[in-house]
Amino acid sequence: MSAPTLQTGADGRLRHLLTVEGLPRPRLEELLNTAESFLGVTQREVKKVPLLRGKTVVNLFFESSTRTRTTFELAAKRLSADVINLSVSTSATVKGESLLDTLRNLEAMHADIFVVRHGTSGAAHFIAQHCLPHVAVLNAGDGRHAHPTQALLDVFTIRRHKPNFDQIKVAIVGDILNSRVARSQIHALTILDTAEVRVVAPRTLLPVGIESLGVKVFTDLTQGLAGVDVIIMLRLQKERMRGALLPSEHEYYRQFGLTEARLQGAHPEAIVMHPGPINRGVEIDSSVADGARSVILEQVTNGIAIRMAAMSLIMGTRTQDGREVG
Amino acid sequence: MSAPTLQTGADGRLRHLLTVEGLPRPRLEELLNTAESFLGVTQREVKKVPLLRGKTVVNLFFESSTRTRTTFELAAKRLSADVINLSVSTSATVKGESLLDTLRNLEAMHADIFVVRHGTSGAAHFIAQHCLPHVAVLNAGDGRHAHPTQALLDVFTIRRHKPNFDQIKVAIVGDILNSRVARSQIHALTILDTAEVRVVAPRTLLPVGIESLGVKVFTDLTQGLAGVDVIIMLRLQKERMRGALLPSEHEYYRQFGLTEARLQGAHPEAIVMHPGPINRGVEIDSSVADGARSVILEQVTNGIAIRMAAMSLIMGTRTQDGREVG
Amino acid sequence: MSAPTLQTGADGRLRHLLTVEGLPRPRLEELLNTAESFLGVTQREVKKVPLLRGKTVVNLFFESSTRTRTTFELAAKRLSADVINLSVSTSATVKGESLLDTLRNLEAMHADIFVVRHGTSGAAHFIAQHCLPHVAVLNAGDGRHAHPTQALLDVFTIRRHKPNFDQIKVAIVGDILNSRVARSQIHALTILDTAEVRVVAPRTLLPVGIESLGVKVFTDLTQGLAGVDVIIMLRLQKERMRGALLPSEHEYYRQFGLTEARLQGAHPEAIVMHPGPINRGVEIDSSVADGARSVILEQVTNGIAIRMAAMSLIMGTRTQDGREVG
Repeated sequence: MSAPTLQTGADGRLRHLLTVEGLPRPRLEELLNTAESFLGVTQREVKKVPLLRGKTVVNLFFESSTRTRTTFELAAKRLSADVINLSVSTSATVKGESLLDTLRNLEAMHADIFVVRHGTSGAAHFIAQHCLPHVAVLNAGDGRHAHPTQALLDVFTIRRHKPNFDQIKVAIVGDILNSRVARSQIHALTILDTAEVRVVAPRTLLPVGIESLGVKVFTDLTQGLAGVDVIIMLRLQKERMRGALLPSEHEYYRQFGLTEARLQGAHPEAIVMHPGPINRGVEIDSSVADGARSVILEQVTNGIAIRMAAMSLIMGTRTQDGREVG
Repeated sequence: MSAPTLQTGADGRLRHLLTVEGLPRPRLEELLNTAESFLGVTQREVKKVPLLRGKTVVNLFFESSTRTRTTFELAAKRLSADVINLSVSTSATVKGESLLDTLRNLEAMHADIFVVRHGTSGAAHFIAQHCLPHVAVLNAGDGRHAHPTQALLDVFTIRRHKPNFDQIKVAIVGDILNSRVARSQIHALTILDTAEVRVVAPRTLLPVGIESLGVKVFTDLTQGLAGVDVIIMLRLQKERMRGALLPSEHEYYRQFGLTEARLQGAHPEAIVMHPGPINRGVEIDSSVADGARSVILEQVTNGIAIRMAAMSLIMGTRTQDGREVG
Repeated sequence: MSAPTLQTGADGRLRHLLTVEGLPRPRLEELLNTAESFLGVTQREVKKVPLLRGKTVVNLFFESSTRTRTTFELAAKRLSADVINLSVSTSATVKGESLLDTLRNLEAMHADIFVVRHGTSGAAHFIAQHCLPHVAVLNAGDGRHAHPTQALLDVFTIRRHKPNFDQIKVAIVGDILNSRVARSQIHALTILDTAEVRVVAPRTLLPVGIESLGVKVFTDLTQGLAGVDVIIMLRLQKERMRGALLPSEHEYYRQFGLTEARLQGAHPEAIVMHPGPINRGVEIDSSVADGARSVILEQVTNGIAIRMAAMSLIMGTRTQDGREVG
């Protein structure tokens, strides 16, 4: 058993989901296995189980993201929880209430889960450190730091196509420097003993010392994709274009955009992934995004199951509910 | 049986509700009859039936309309569905995601019904053409084209007061040119073999060739209302006033506003309708809107029942649920 | 039995909750006792009772307040009601619909409870006067007039610590002039025969003739707090600072801010309350707000129970549901 952390607690069970980094492999696989059982629920006639009935999930979004919020809202409702959506920049902080006071108030209202999205790295950890024992925190993206449910749904999706991580090569392509998604993916893939994890990006979008995470670095797309089993394209934030980091959208696409031609260099059965939303014609060509090797929409479907799994597991450590899926 | 269309499918059953135009009379009457049974539900102690339990209804509003969104939200909740409200101008499109990508994502999350409101004519059809077979589309108003649930609740309301359509005269008064409501009403009344449908408007607010829809055209209100059984007043969009189309609000009211005096020319038992929200003192006098012949609030009540009927019927063609109302 | 009023009706039972003023003591105590039974619900594994299943609660907020709206939304959901959130400034009124037309429409949709927040004093009364018999109105704050659920949760909180109101002294400190909370608190404390109610404020923040409500007036904090059992600090609206009413935030804190030192003058077991959100370092020092005598977060918890009680009682007078808590 690993040492207790903020998110796994003394008994080693999952209390919060803050980051993939340092998550013991059994915990990560428990999440994937639980999600597997929830996939069935989302395909049923009645897409609902009573696991979190009477529980209150608060979507605490300090950074707006309708798409991500919707996936958590759907996951919570399919677990029969009550959901409150709070867009915090437009509410309490208007009256000058501090983050901690907002938390204390929501705790006093008997919220059970905070789904936290914040522009500052470490925000979800901060909240988990300061919240009451009965409250669980789910990190829905914090600054450049982590986006654990995204990385989990990604390895979940990979596992359904390539179950043996120790035999596959995965390339993550794009803005590694600014991506909390990439960081979390690298950690998840490493925990699962992936044979080879590559990052592929222009030098200006690679963080210094990235090799220390155990990845192979490529600045050429053709070389980076050679023989890989999984290609994960990252979204290019258009804001980056304005700065000096990148020459132009067109130039980026020419060098790092995933086209049918580029895809030829990968393993013939390679799958193509993207966390969405896609910039068609910037980081990926439409024919690839919509093509036979793309599993991009499976990722979305799997994302609901992963979020249901995370919510039910972190609540399971606080209640007598058990974790059986009805 | 009629030829299959996008909304009725090969078996003639309702798969989407996009427009009233071309809806076979049995389908239209099935909607009205189903709504009749739901009227009882909304008057019960517990205003809820489990027909859509575990189903996900997404209100996809590209054009803001709190009132219309609320009626669909209530209808869905009273069918026990889970509801997600997406105001799209402020969400995905901010990140530059295309309409189709937004759809694909919501489908992948296992949305069951899209309620679509859009400023562009044809948007709901476009979405129905491109969505997966398990998804149903409800048009909640597209550009100047159609607003089928409004027209259905209108003929439903008429039927409760004047059951024999082949014996009544109906006048639709106001901005026919820009009104998706008027277009859908004309189609619904025609399908039900209404004895006479009139449109009454200043020449500048009449579309060219409107006669081809089988309506009688009047540019004088007194003549247009003479002997009619049903008067449907349309909302005058104040934006029209700014242009050259209309002289002034006051002048419009003098010529086309419905007053007690004007109402005298209609049948003594004529009913007065309006899709809301009302511009009091512009297209209708308050004493008429709130008077004994007004059924404007009944329309609102009936609107919930019609939307429950539409949702349950289009889902009934995709599931084993059957269509019995509990 | 008292004379019937708009909110208590001919049989003396609660039909709306508009103001604490004039509420018969048995009604007020019924609310507190019902809230007591709901406190248990919010601490259960499954925080939900089916009392309002199939009922529709509309949060009609003409003035934005995410915090207050959330407490009513949670209370309604824990009673199993369907909740519709309407932020009215951004919806119907955009299209120029009048308040009464908005009400009539929501009634026609079979809304059961309107939770009304409005910047104008008397708005909730106006709505209760004009709504249909089947609809109940809950005032969630109107102008400078009343905020009854806040006052009720305050006396509920006091009662749990100091059950004998006729033996305690309560000081309300701060902007009495502009506070609907203070007005409602004074009424509630008076109805419960509180031995002594004090208001403590700079002269510029005291309404003329406040003594007529039966309170003792203090303009010096030390004197005002001497020997009191309960201290209620009010939030200082920062907007007031801009005017001529107050010298500066710093000066206000120096004279009227609650510090540990000031607290020494109160009864050794005095409790400290605040309706939130707190301005730390303006009206209250952090060490006091978070200290052993503070019951500020209990107030938040109790607020959910009080709102559940108010909703279930006002619906109980309209239905056969009875008022047993499941």
